[in-house]
Amino acid sequence: MTPIVQNAALRQMGLNVVNVAFHVTSENLGSVVKGAQGLGLLGLMVTIPHKVAVMDYLDELDDSARMMGTVNLVHLNNGRAIGHNSDGYAAARSLGEAGVRIQASRVVLIGAGGAARCLAKKFAAEGAEEVLVFNRTRSRAQSIADEVQREGFKGIGAFELTETALAAALVEADILVNATSVGMVPRPGETPVPQALLKPGLVVYDIVYNPLETRLLREARLAGATPVDGIGMLVYTNERAVQICTGLPPPVELMRRVCTEELLRRTS
Amino acid sequence: MTPIVQNAALRQMGLNVVNVAFHVTSENLGSVVKGAQGLGLLGLMVTIPHKVAVMDYLDELDDSARMMGTVNLVHLNNGRAIGHNSDGYAAARSLGEAGVRIQASRVVLIGAGGAARCLAKKFAAEGAEEVLVFNRTRSRAQSIADEVQREGFKGIGAFELTETALAAALVEADILVNATSVGMVPRPGETPVPQALLKPGLVVYDIVYNPLETRLLREARLAGATPVDGIGMLVYTNERAVQICTGLPPPVELMRRVCTEELLRRTS
Repeated sequence: MTPIVQNAALRQMGLNVVNVAFHVTSENLGSVVKGAQGLGLLGLMVTIPHKVAVMDYLDELDDSARMMGTVNLVHLNNGRAIGHNSDGYAAARSLGEAGVRIQASRVVLIGAGGAARCLAKKFAAEGAEEVLVFNRTRSRAQSIADEVQREGFKGIGAFELTETALAAALVEADILVNATSVGMVPRPGETPVPQALLKPGLVVYDIVYNPLETRLLREARLAGATPVDGIGMLVYTNERAVQICTGLPPPVELMRRVCTEELLRRTS
Repeated sequence: MTPIVQNAALRQMGLNVVNVAFHVTSENLGSVVKGAQGLGLLGLMVTIPHKVAVMDYLDELDDSARMMGTVNLVHLNNGRAIGHNSDGYAAARSLGEAGVRIQASRVVLIGAGGAARCLAKKFAAEGAEEVLVFNRTRSRAQSIADEVQREGFKGIGAFELTETALAAALVEADILVNATSVGMVPRPGETPVPQALLKPGLVVYDIVYNPLETRLLREARLAGATPVDGIGMLVYTNERAVQICTGLPPPVELMRRVCTEELLRRTS
């Protein structure tokens, strides 16, 4: 998706810059960062499984990457490789645009992978009152909770993902977040939360963007809850990448439109 | 020019491949070859000043690169970096398309840089009877002559570039080649050969393609000689690059048209 979304923006901006996707294996990560600097690339977007390992090859981390402990963008700038992480920014902006206020909110967060860890930290940093992390394997949720707590946020808890525990937590929750891949193509029939637990007033944010309206979001809509889809993760991480690497603000609405059209095309 | 010409061909071929130009300094040459392999690039086109130095970072040279002693294309293939040189091929094909026969011909070659060296070797390999290398500094022409002679071609000679010597050589010559940058933009008013020495029956090949019709080629035309322009160097080196790196034959006529249009656009 990234080349499609970014190249539409770069063309519109009239820049002689192109985004190209590469498949890089772990053993080549260091030589790729060095070679990219030699080629004069503006930057590298980094995804699974390189978001932590790439930090070994950088000269500097900006605040966002230090806070997240992972990197999704390497800005190659005057001979220096600088790590950034825009995942938290993209999630917070997605919620903000939907009119959702993170400050003082109570969040139920499902999942304990990289995305969940990143979101937990972002919610803590944005002043959420409480972040409850649910995961099938409770110990993985606990390790996120421990890490966030060590950084000074007291409102975090870790729970095994059971319907009973989830139901209890959702009574008081303002925001429910799916940070797992449940419901993603090729299994769009799945959902991490029974429809009966969804209610008006609850914000339901799904980081899955494929399909654009997941079963969770559809059921949230039908239950009168406020659905927030995962397209903003794509749009805003790419927006930040273009902004940081070119120094110019990209046309966000165009990016959102191209992104939506492409996702709909893929699932039609 | 290369991205413009190649991308037109790659689009037409329907390939998800793009050609991008990079400015690489000598100290980064090794890391760029290694990084390009890590990125999974199909290849690197190499130009001045890296055509010899890049050989230190390759796993293999194909026959063309071994013969020329320089590399203008690195094919990255299954973890191996293989050097090629298509300059000779491009020159010979340019002449061939103009109906010029190299075999048994007498060639007067002006210049003693990389291009002249490459052309001298190609003419020798293609069975020219005689290749006379003219250069302002005779010793540089001599070093090309020595090298070509060592490789078993006896018909080579080296001369200081004076009007008298050139006039004498051109009496019997079939092909006159300009392998210097004389006449190139920004000094299109210059020519390496006085018009009075040009005559019907002589083939005049200019590797300069900017302007498309150099003063030398214009005066050759006016003198009734057969002009061959340098556009084939661009078209056929790019044709070989696409052919070798993608394994598919590119649309040569499209490449020539795009190339011509772009060159005319630049000089209009």
